Amino acid sequence: MKIKVILPVITKEFIDPTLEEVEKFASKGTEINAECIEYGTASIECKYDEMLDAPGIIKVAEKAQSEGFDGVIIDCFGDPALEAVREKLDIPVVGPGRVSMLYAADLAHRFSIVTVLENLLAILENRVMEVGLGSKLASVRSVDIPVLDIMNIEKLTAALVDESIKAIEEDGAHAIILGCTGFLGVVDNLRDALKKKGYEVPVIYPVAVAVKYLETLISLNLAQGKRTYMPPPKKERNILERL
Amino acid sequence: MKIKVILPVITKEFIDPTLEEVEKFASKGTEINAECIEYGTASIECKYDEMLDAPGIIKVAEKAQSEGFDGVIIDCFGDPALEAVREKLDIPVVGPGRVSMLYAADLAHRFSIVTVLENLLAILENRVMEVGLGSKLASVRSVDIPVLDIMNIEKLTAALVDESIKAIEEDGAHAIILGCTGFLGVVDNLRDALKKKGYEVPVIYPVAVAVKYLETLISLNLAQGKRTYMPPPKKERNILERL
Amino acid sequence: MKIKVILPVITKEFIDPTLEEVEKFASKGTEINAECIEYGTASIECKYDEMLDAPGIIKVAEKAQSEGFDGVIIDCFGDPALEAVREKLDIPVVGPGRVSMLYAADLAHRFSIVTVLENLLAILENRVMEVGLGSKLASVRSVDIPVLDIMNIEKLTAALVDESIKAIEEDGAHAIILGCTGFLGVVDNLRDALKKKGYEVPVIYPVAVAVKYLETLISLNLAQGKRTYMPPPKKERNILERL
Amino acid sequence: MKIKVILPVITKEFIDPTLEEVEKFASKGTEINAECIEYGTASIECKYDEMLDAPGIIKVAEKAQSEGFDGVIIDCFGDPALEAVREKLDIPVVGPGRVSMLYAADLAHRFSIVTVLENLLAILENRVMEVGLGSKLASVRSVDIPVLDIMNIEKLTAALVDESIKAIEEDGAHAIILGCTGFLGVVDNLRDALKKKGYEVPVIYPVAVAVKYLETLISLNLAQGKRTYMPPPKKERNILERL
Amino acid sequence: MKIKVILPVITKEFIDPTLEEVEKFASKGTEINAECIEYGTASIECKYDEMLDAPGIIKVAEKAQSEGFDGVIIDCFGDPALEAVREKLDIPVVGPGRVSMLYAADLAHRFSIVTVLENLLAILENRVMEVGLGSKLASVRSVDIPVLDIMNIEKLTAALVDESIKAIEEDGAHAIILGCTGFLGVVDNLRDALKKKGYEVPVIYPVAVAVKYLETLISLNLAQGKRTYMPPPKKERNILERL
Amino acid sequence: MKIKVILPVITKEFIDPTLEEVEKFASKGTEINAECIEYGTASIECKYDEMLDAPGIIKVAEKAQSEGFDGVIIDCFGDPALEAVREKLDIPVVGPGRVSMLYAADLAHRFSIVTVLENLLAILENRVMEVGLGSKLASVRSVDIPVLDIMNIEKLTAALVDESIKAIEEDGAHAIILGCTGFLGVVDNLRDALKKKGYEVPVIYPVAVAVKYLETLISLNLAQGKRTYMPPPKKERNILERL
Repeated sequence: MKIKVILPVITKEFIDPTLEEVEKFASKGTEINAECIEYGTASIECKYDEMLDAPGIIKVAEKAQSEGFDGVIIDCFGDPALEAVREKLDIPVVGPGRVSMLYAADLAHRFSIVTVLENLLAILENRVMEVGLGSKLASVRSVDIPVLDIMNIEKLTAALVDESIKAIEEDGAHAIILGCTGFLGVVDNLRDALKKKGYEVPVIYPVAVAVKYLETLISLNLAQGKRTYMPPPKKERNILERL
Repeated sequence: MKIKVILPVITKEFIDPTLEEVEKFASKGTEINAECIEYGTASIECKYDEMLDAPGIIKVAEKAQSEGFDGVIIDCFGDPALEAVREKLDIPVVGPGRVSMLYAADLAHRFSIVTVLENLLAILENRVMEVGLGSKLASVRSVDIPVLDIMNIEKLTAALVDESIKAIEEDGAHAIILGCTGFLGVVDNLRDALKKKGYEVPVIYPVAVAVKYLETLISLNLAQGKRTYMPPPKKERNILERL
Repeated sequence: MKIKVILPVITKEFIDPTLEEVEKFASKGTEINAECIEYGTASIECKYDEMLDAPGIIKVAEKAQSEGFDGVIIDCFGDPALEAVREKLDIPVVGPGRVSMLYAADLAHRFSIVTVLENLLAILENRVMEVGLGSKLASVRSVDIPVLDIMNIEKLTAALVDESIKAIEEDGAHAIILGCTGFLGVVDNLRDALKKKGYEVPVIYPVAVAVKYLETLISLNLAQGKRTYMPPPKKERNILERL
Repeated sequence: MKIKVILPVITKEFIDPTLEEVEKFASKGTEINAECIEYGTASIECKYDEMLDAPGIIKVAEKAQSEGFDGVIIDCFGDPALEAVREKLDIPVVGPGRVSMLYAADLAHRFSIVTVLENLLAILENRVMEVGLGSKLASVRSVDIPVLDIMNIEKLTAALVDESIKAIEEDGAHAIILGCTGFLGVVDNLRDALKKKGYEVPVIYPVAVAVKYLETLISLNLAQGKRTYMPPPKKERNILERL
Repeated sequence: MKIKVILPVITKEFIDPTLEEVEKFASKGTEINAECIEYGTASIECKYDEMLDAPGIIKVAEKAQSEGFDGVIIDCFGDPALEAVREKLDIPVVGPGRVSMLYAADLAHRFSIVTVLENLLAILENRVMEVGLGSKLASVRSVDIPVLDIMNIEKLTAALVDESIKAIEEDGAHAIILGCTGFLGVVDNLRDALKKKGYEVPVIYPVAVAVKYLETLISLNLAQGKRTYMPPPKKERNILERL
Repeated sequence: MKIKVILPVITKEFIDPTLEEVEKFASKGTEINAECIEYGTASIECKYDEMLDAPGIIKVAEKAQSEGFDGVIIDCFGDPALEAVREKLDIPVVGPGRVSMLYAADLAHRFSIVTVLENLLAILENRVMEVGLGSKLASVRSVDIPVLDIMNIEKLTAALVDESIKAIEEDGAHAIILGCTGFLGVVDNLRDALKKKGYEVPVIYPVAVAVKYLETLISLNLAQGKRTYMPPPKKERNILERL
């Protein structure tokens, strides 16, 4: 089984660490390929970035299907261009944000999302509503560290622990979702730190659940429903060849 | 007051009829300018189109603000890239879809939207939810005529009358929203035809309400809230110069 | 275009300042007339007042239509007797509360209402639900100043600033609605004071948006839908001639 | 225990049959008194009627408390002026509509209301929402017989049976609420007729449940909460002495 | 009229104090009988207990109907096995939790439940949702005293007062529901203590309202609807004879 | 990895076909063990059955954890005793119903569940609400074939096709969930039959998704959150030793 991980940004430095992390969770026999977009933004921290990256994401996704990949992950918690790609492709397309919310909704009464910047709070709340899980959301919180600065694992973990505890104590969260797919390599530290302080809650790692979920879809021959994501009608379109 | 109407598609033939229609509703003293995008799609009938047109919309919108326009209308019922443009601009940005829903919610207990293709049904339902008006929606229906074929006013009106009556009789609609900004010049015919058949309901014309609403925002010095639509952080972005 | 502003109370002293404020926002060519009711209450601060004023409101509204007015504003944030008047009249009838909520729902992810007394908190929450915007409401707050004491602009503004900041910081509001049509002449001060303290949020002024919205309805030939607001059946009624 | 039943209309002919019916359900030792209003409307079939009757209802209710009654029923399914009277009085005030909905919500997964005229459909839907039971409502239906014509028991019962079966078969109702307190003396016939046709569903009779519920409140020393229904502030009010 | 109160636990010591309390509220002529289950748990403080007690509850309930009782109360705030018993029995079956929520929803804009342990918080929130009253819930709080330790009336009352005030001040509750049917003999003290501190809110006592509500159902010939609670199909079942 | 599949009924004939089907979907290296309960019911078709089977389910589940299994599936679409078992166990416990709903919510705008008998309609609707996915539910439908008669694959498939098409055409479903874990070996036939008739929708097979989801939880070291499913307090319990 061959999976394409689309890094929906122009920052090629994200490819290797992401690939490494994704491969940790993939089953034996799953082949992973990661690819950035050519034209777009260095990171995604608002709708403005999502929209600028959308055509690039579509371009890489279409190529992936034509090259015989069995499924696609759009590797950003905001699931940018997810609906558009699902319309265009027949192979399953997975958004780590949606999947994380659904897993959290099964494992706990209420969940919080901890993301990078407060720019994303209203946007992610809207995403939760769209998935239909508004009544399960305790809160969306941010560590206030830009995506391009989250390499400092220690600082990031400390901030994640702080916000997670506030989510549990003040907002009533029973599970925590890491709200950025760039939060690499911190999930175990966060879980342990929370446990040490007496907070034993499921911590959902979007990269991990997205891989396992996509593998499940492929193995069960499932994909996005075409009554929801109808194929785009034919017409003139002149942007993809520019990118 | 100077208003920029962005036609978020590459079909320049839409400019003149739209301009003509918009000017009918604009107040004296309001200067209207309409502009297409360079790279994108010929029409918008799905999320795929919305995403491919988004960067072009952003480009025209940014230019409009820098050229001193007082407000922007993104002239498509799906309000493509609305959030992104609202983040980037300080002048008020109006989406005809959102405004039409809010007007309908005031005037009637429940409303239906009649749009072009069934590709848009789930998408528009999600839009209504996002605006927070899910409990006011009777249904979304389509005339099953592609955007590029809606110039046949007679055929279009007949189909709109049919679907509107079904919306009223079967779905319990008390108001009808024209769900495509390309439905030009049919609102009076539709209203009259419905009235003649005994259905006296408000028919919301998105082009008209968008213009009046934007004029109101400008005159009251109101615009999108910056706590919801926070300005995009600085970073490398390389797509707009390609378009 | 002739607009009747109904002051739904018996306090004639409200007429002049209201008229002055409304005229600030009306378009050139719009003729405004304001009128109190004869029998009712000095101000509206609870459902008890709303109910006692309802027949008087209806009486003035019916007269307005028969005198050829083009539209009516019931000038109280609680929109008293709005549904009843909308049933009886064919010309458009506007409630400043409903309209303010709808405008706020467009401009921001979540809004708060700041009103006079805590008597109104549950009542206004119910109003928001009725309009269908429950998921957009951050909170309803009160300055705890009775309607008849809000002439002290300085004290009022200070209290409005305080409650607005609490709404933003504690309740997550992204926009503020002035929750009393008697809050005259403070909107600019409030907006400036908030901005100076770093809170740049849309402040919705119900008097202003009601006027612009009614002008829009009249110019677009729109009014309340008669499937929602069906005309009252004929029968004996003996109260209006007493008032 | 002394209970005042307010007939919120000016039609004195309703007093005797209502009293007779209420007394059937009252416990031994409960003293019932029924009273019309002086100024208002002959029946209630829309918001217009509700508003015109509101001051009269308030007047009778205030008198009832001052005369030592232990509780009040406002005998109309629309619960007109309920909130206002609850604010003003300390003794428990019961609305037959609210109580019927709450009983139905306990006994069945989903309920329908069958009322007199379609004028009331949107109004009653809003009432259900306000009580918080929107997710329990299957539908509101009408027999299309005006209040003043419902004395023809046979015709009324036939229409109620028809609409109840449609509510069950088409809307998924598991219980039926009689949506007019003027539907006197038909509940047993309706229940039997439905049963004979194979539809064994709870039929909620608002007059009956209102009496039993008010007796319960009085005996348990319960009444409307004063944080929800805060006492009206003092001020000039000049209408009650006119009525 | 003969009512069976099922104590859904194996602790026979609960019978006498419960019986005493129930009889306080029953009407003259109502015969009350209380009975424990043979096999189950000493108290109910989680879903695990509810499930272990369910067959025992069913056994006692079936016996009650066959012995000619007119109605059944399952005397635990969590309403364990309520749906199952309602399916099997024709006589009315009442759950004190559901009824308390419905009464509170009538009397106040929003209510809080104060229960024994935090194990029950998510469970009771789900119950409120199931009844359809999610929008009326201010909060669920716990006194953190296990069921088997609540005999210390003084300590219990103090804790209830504390949590009730927090519910009012911090969560916006306008009514308080005692969230455990084992909270016997404290309702008056709690109400008085709250009143003395300036909090005059309805306090709903589940034992009392359950008795009055069941009496009402029996006297009006009402019971659970059989379209919601359909009779269990015939099949082999081998557990009840073991208990 | 060792997984225990609990067949929550006393019908041992279900073990072999279920085991065979589960093993089709399990990964290589996953060891599956299936076990019935000793005391309970022959099948589950209502809440009465669920409650009678609950203690038996708990008994088998506790044994599974003590014997070193890594996870448990309660193999019934109604997820009987799921919360109770999740409270008691530390290893992950999966309910096929919940998981199916969450997968469907990702893949399609709206889903329908097709189950065995109409006894389950209200019960399953409540389950969907509890998971928080009420807004994603198109309908619950039944084939009206009792669990013990579903071995006739041809008749079953025909009925499933019929109801699925009604769900799509009349209720607006975009995905179908098989609403009974006893619907073995029909998923491919159903999908093909629907496709042949032009309905290409995801068909969710609860047995399959439950296995893959549990494997995911185990491999990612995830389990039910203990703030939602708190461990049962210690106390006397005397039923499990009877079963």
